[in-house]
Amino acid sequence: MSQEKSTAYQKEPLSIVVIGASGDLAQRKIYPALFALYCQKLLPDVVHIVGFARSEMSNTDFRTKVSRNLTCRYSQEESNEAAIKSFLERCTYVAGQYNEAESFRQLHKELQHLDPDGAENRIFYMSIPPFLFMEVAHALKAADLVNRAENRGGWTRAVIEKPFGEDRQSSDELTSSMGQVFTEKQTYRIDHYLGKEVIQNLMVLRFANMVFDPIWDRASIHDVRITWMEDLSLEGRAGYFDEYGIIRDVMQNHLLQMVALMAMEPPVSLFSGHVRDEKVKALRAIAPVGLNDIVVGQYSAGAMKGKQHFGYLDEPGVPKDSITPTYAAAVLQVNNRRWDGVPFLIRAGKGLSSSMTEIRLRFREVPGNLFKDATGHLSKNELVIRVQPDAGIAFHIVNRVPGLGMQLAESNLNLRYESAFQTKIPDAYESLLLDVVQGDKSLFIRADELEAAWDIFTPILHTLAKDRIKPEPYTFGSNGPASADALAARFNVKW
Amino acid sequence: MSQEKSTAYQKEPLSIVVIGASGDLAQRKIYPALFALYCQKLLPDVVHIVGFARSEMSNTDFRTKVSRNLTCRYSQEESNEAAIKSFLERCTYVAGQYNEAESFRQLHKELQHLDPDGAENRIFYMSIPPFLFMEVAHALKAADLVNRAENRGGWTRAVIEKPFGEDRQSSDELTSSMGQVFTEKQTYRIDHYLGKEVIQNLMVLRFANMVFDPIWDRASIHDVRITWMEDLSLEGRAGYFDEYGIIRDVMQNHLLQMVALMAMEPPVSLFSGHVRDEKVKALRAIAPVGLNDIVVGQYSAGAMKGKQHFGYLDEPGVPKDSITPTYAAAVLQVNNRRWDGVPFLIRAGKGLSSSMTEIRLRFREVPGNLFKDATGHLSKNELVIRVQPDAGIAFHIVNRVPGLGMQLAESNLNLRYESAFQTKIPDAYESLLLDVVQGDKSLFIRADELEAAWDIFTPILHTLAKDRIKPEPYTFGSNGPASADALAARFNVKW
Repeated sequence: MSQEKSTAYQKEPLSIVVIGASGDLAQRKIYPALFALYCQKLLPDVVHIVGFARSEMSNTDFRTKVSRNLTCRYSQEESNEAAIKSFLERCTYVAGQYNEAESFRQLHKELQHLDPDGAENRIFYMSIPPFLFMEVAHALKAADLVNRAENRGGWTRAVIEKPFGEDRQSSDELTSSMGQVFTEKQTYRIDHYLGKEVIQNLMVLRFANMVFDPIWDRASIHDVRITWMEDLSLEGRAGYFDEYGIIRDVMQNHLLQMVALMAMEPPVSLFSGHVRDEKVKALRAIAPVGLNDIVVGQYSAGAMKGKQHFGYLDEPGVPKDSITPTYAAAVLQVNNRRWDGVPFLIRAGKGLSSSMTEIRLRFREVPGNLFKDATGHLSKNELVIRVQPDAGIAFHIVNRVPGLGMQLAESNLNLRYESAFQTKIPDAYESLLLDVVQGDKSLFIRADELEAAWDIFTPILHTLAKDRIKPEPYTFGSNGPASADALAARFNVKW
Repeated sequence: MSQEKSTAYQKEPLSIVVIGASGDLAQRKIYPALFALYCQKLLPDVVHIVGFARSEMSNTDFRTKVSRNLTCRYSQEESNEAAIKSFLERCTYVAGQYNEAESFRQLHKELQHLDPDGAENRIFYMSIPPFLFMEVAHALKAADLVNRAENRGGWTRAVIEKPFGEDRQSSDELTSSMGQVFTEKQTYRIDHYLGKEVIQNLMVLRFANMVFDPIWDRASIHDVRITWMEDLSLEGRAGYFDEYGIIRDVMQNHLLQMVALMAMEPPVSLFSGHVRDEKVKALRAIAPVGLNDIVVGQYSAGAMKGKQHFGYLDEPGVPKDSITPTYAAAVLQVNNRRWDGVPFLIRAGKGLSSSMTEIRLRFREVPGNLFKDATGHLSKNELVIRVQPDAGIAFHIVNRVPGLGMQLAESNLNLRYESAFQTKIPDAYESLLLDVVQGDKSLFIRADELEAAWDIFTPILHTLAKDRIKPEPYTFGSNGPASADALAARFNVKW
C-alpha cells in the first residue's frame, strides 16, 4: 500500500538477513523479489543480502543458489548479466545453528564487517518453520542483534509468515513470546495475499469511486462470495498440511483478509494504523463460526486432465484416519449497521476443478422491476473481482439484447489487468518487501487483527477436533462437496 | 420498445403505403427496413407494399427502384435472390398528385384490388416534405382512406417524421390540422433516434440495474453531457437546413429525447402511455433556454482530411447573410427533486472534427476522498453511453495502477455492442416500423411531448431571429466555437 515516499531511506545502509536461506520460499520468492527491487533501484544504495542456514556453504555456492530464479524484467540500463552479477556481489552466507547464540554472534560479526559505520538498519526475514521462530528470536536477542540498532538511531525489523499458531491461544502465546524479543512495531506479519495487485486495489475501488459509495451496504448488496480453489493436492507438504488443514491454511488468513477489506468502514486516512483499526473493527463484528455455518470436505480419489489422483487419505505422509479438511465453506455474518443480514460466503479447497481466487458481490433485485417479465432471474447485478489467474474486474449489468422485441441479458463491463495496464505486475513479495524496507505496515497483520481473525474460527476448530467430525468426501477434480451448495442455498445464493 | 407480443396481428392482411415512394428516405431506409422485417417473417402473412408518388412509373420500374438497397442479412431458409424476388412481388406502384382526391381514389381502388376481403389495415408512411403533409392528409380523407378501416374492425396508422413545425405555434397548428384527419391514436410521430439500439437500452440500463438506482440523482451526479457531431456539411439539403437550423434539426428532437430518457422518473409500467407520461413530465420540468444558456455557431471555410470545405455562407443555396446556426451548445436545468442543480449540457453541430453521438454522465467527487493526493482530478467516475459509431457502454472507474507505490488512474470497464452481442443490430427504422405494424407507440412522440419539447426552445428561437443574433464562426473540421467551452466551464465541466 506504499504511497509515494521520500527516498531518504536509500541513503542509509541496510542489511537484509534471510534466515532459512536455503529453503524453498527464499529461493522462489524472496531472492527474486529483492533482485527486482534492486534492479528498480528501490533498495538503499548500500545493501547487503545475508543468507543464514544450517548447511555449510561457501559464498560462491550460495550465490549460485540465489541466481537460479533471478530474472531481470526491470533492468533497463544494464544488461541482465551485469545486473545479476552486481546483485550477487551483495550476497553473502553465514552457516549456523538456529538455537545457538554463538552462530548468531558470527552473523553479527559478518554484519558489522559488511557495514562497519552504518546505523545498523537490519531486516530479519524468518523463512523458517514456525517451531523455530522462538529459538531464532531468542538467539538473535542473545547475540545483541535486536536492540543495538535502535540505540544507534537505526532500526530492526522481523518478518514472519503464517502459520501464526493453530488457534487463538497458541497464536497469543507466539505473539507474546515474540513480543519478548521484538516490539509490535518491529514485527511484520506477512499475509502475501495483501501484496497481490487486485487485493491492493480493493480499497481504491471502494473508496476512490463515487459510484460504489452509495451502493456498498445491506440496502443494495444481497451477498458477498469469496472463492479460493486449487486443482493441486499437497505438493509435498503433507506433514504441514495435515496438521493445519484448509481452515488454518487459507481461510483464517487470506480469506478473512479479503472479507475485512470488503466489509471495513472507510479509515480516517491511509496511514497504516488507521487502515488496520478499521480492519480489526470489521473482523470483530463477525460472529464466531458455528457448526451450522460450515461445511468441511476431504477429497477422495478422482481423475483430472486424464490423470488419476490419490484420495487425501492415500497421500504419502497422511494418516489413514485423518479428519483434516482439504475443503471448507462457511457463512460469516458481519453484525454491524452496514452489513446486518448480508451473508459473506467463503470457501476454499484443494483438489478442485481449477485454480482460481475471486470475490463476487451480488446486488439485490431491482425494486419494482419494470422488466421482470423480460428478465426473469437476470435482474441482479454482480461485481466480480478476479484475483487470479487473469486478474481483473467485471461488472455484470443487464442490457437489452439488440434486436427486435424486448429481450434482456446480463452482459459484462470488463477490465482485464493484462490489457488495461501496460505495466508489469509485480509479485506480491516484491511489493511487501519494499514496504518492509520503507517501514510501511499497512499491508501487514497487526496483533489485534490476528486475535480477531482467530476468534472467528477457534471455536469451530476445537469442535471439529474434539468431536472428530468427519469431513464430507468429494471427488478430486470436482467442485467440492454437495453440502456446500446446500449451505449457500439457505441464503438464496448459488456459488 | 416492443415487448414479446402476440403474433395474432400476422393473421390480418396489411397494406403499407409509402407516400413519396421515390424519395431518398424511402429508398435508403423504409424499403430495406420492410424487407428485413419480411425476411424475419415479422410482417403479416399477407402484406402489400404500395408506392405512391408523382412520377409515372410501371410496377417493374418501381420494383427495380426498391430492389437497389435490399440486403437480406436475416434470410436463412431462402437464398437472397429468392427472398428479394418474393418481396418485390408484393410491391406495387400508383402514380398521382399529392393534392388530388382523385389520385387517392385510384390508390383506394388499388388497395381494394390487392386485399378485397380484409379488415383494411393500412399504414400510410408520409415520406414527403412537411408542406405536403396536410394536402395529402386531406386527400386521403376525401378518398375515404382514413376511417373506413376503423369502421370495419381494422385500423389506419399514419407515420410522419420531423420537422413537426418550426416552433410551438406552428407545431400546434400542424398537430391540430393533422388532428382533423387522424386521431392522436392513429398518428405515429417518428424520431428515429428512439429506434437506435443504445437509446432503446437507456431505460433498461436505468431501471433493470440495481446498481444505478441509488446513484442516478443530484446527490451522485455532477453533470450530464450529450454530444451530437457531424463531420459533414449540408449534403445537398441547403434549402431545408437553412430554414430550420441545427436547433430545430437535431436539438429540439433527438437531443431532448435523450435528455428525457436520462432524466425521467421510473414509469408505472412499460405500457407506452406510462413511458410517455414520464418523458413529458421530465421535459416540462426543464426551463426554457435563455440567451445566456446557449451558444450558437456557424462554420467557416476549413480543411478536413486534406480537403478544403466551403464556409456555410458560401455553400450553394445558402443566402450570404444567413444567420442559421450550424452549431449550438446549451445548458438545460431540470427543475425537479431529482435533478435540481445538475446541468444537462447538450451540443450539436455540423462541419466538426468527427461524426459521433454520445451521452456522458459524470459523477461527483468522492466525499472525503482518502486518495486525493494520489488522484488529483481523477476522482470523478464517468458513465459513457456511445450511440454511434461503435455503439457501447464504458464505465470509467479509478483503479490502482499495478506496480510499486500508490498511483491511481482512470480505467474503463467496457462493453462494446459489436463484441458483446453476436446478434445483428437492426437499423432504427426496422425497429420502429415493426412497432407501427404492432401498434406499439412507446417510441413515438406524443402530441404533449412535442409541445413540451418546443416550449424549451421556442423563446430562444424567436429571440435569435428577432434580434438577428449572429452565430459565432468556427472553422470547418474543428470542435466548434470557443464560447461553447466557456459555457461548460461555468458549470465546472469540460466537454
